[in-house]
Amino acid sequence: MASSSSSHPSAPCAACKFLRRKCIQGCVFAPYFPPEDPTKFVNVHKIFGASNVSKLLNEIAPHQREDAVSSLAYEAEARLKDPVYGCVGAISVLQRQVLRLQKELDATNADLIRFSSSQSISTTPPSSQPNSHVSPSSNYGSTYSSWS
Amino acid sequence: MASSSSSHPSAPCAACKFLRRKCIQGCVFAPYFPPEDPTKFVNVHKIFGASNVSKLLNEIAPHQREDAVSSLAYEAEARLKDPVYGCVGAISVLQRQVLRLQKELDATNADLIRFSSSQSISTTPPSSQPNSHVSPSSNYGSTYSSWS
Repeated sequence: MASSSSSHPSAPCAACKFLRRKCIQGCVFAPYFPPEDPTKFVNVHKIFGASNVSKLLNEIAPHQREDAVSSLAYEAEARLKDPVYGCVGAISVLQRQVLRLQKELDATNADLIRFSSSQSISTTPPSSQPNSHVSPSSNYGSTYSSWS
Repeated sequence: MASSSSSHPSAPCAACKFLRRKCIQGCVFAPYFPPEDPTKFVNVHKIFGASNVSKLLNEIAPHQREDAVSSLAYEAEARLKDPVYGCVGAISVLQRQVLRLQKELDATNADLIRFSSSQSISTTPPSSQPNSHVSPSSNYGSTYSSWS
């Protein structure tokens, strides 16, 4: 989290270098856009614009800025790779995975219960009954609005 | 997909109204930012900037622009709700759900196999063996780089 002025007395941060401006002490970009990684700022700038990123960073607490820049960089990279869907494409794929896995889990649990019941009828009950793996926290789909 | 000039001959689209400019025939924003929904453009403009959105729309095929605007609007809304993580927060939650469901599915399948084996030893095999619900497409985690 050291600013460019302390770790690189003479090197401007990647943002100031790209924007061709003096990297002053307390530059809002410097702690998160080191000169060694120019692509990170180029991507974020291309998708969100330097002014919007600067505004956003100033609006959030300093201890959360690193996470904010990481998520912006992730979104920017996803949008550059997929200009139509960006990282919303990943959300869509993950939502389908969750639905498919939940369906598979429901089917497996149903098999387990059916198998256990049929065995109970034809034989003496086994010493340990199988456990149904439906956790109460499996309320997928309720946290985020669906993208499809 | 009708442009504002055809559906609303006198009303500028939400983007041109917000930017206080004349909404000309062929305006790149008009088909996707109708005057009835001003918030959609305000959000997208606040996060990405009108210029970046315009550039993006011009770079992609017309038939994909509606999806692109929808995904930008989704991302913008998510970033306004959660300035630190934006829609990357949703990716993180969904990735954890996928991992948890896969773990539960693996445990249930293991139970099913164990239960079936113990029954086969003590009794005659049941008429139908349970099926293990591990689909070959369950390669979660390989499609998108993890965010955590």
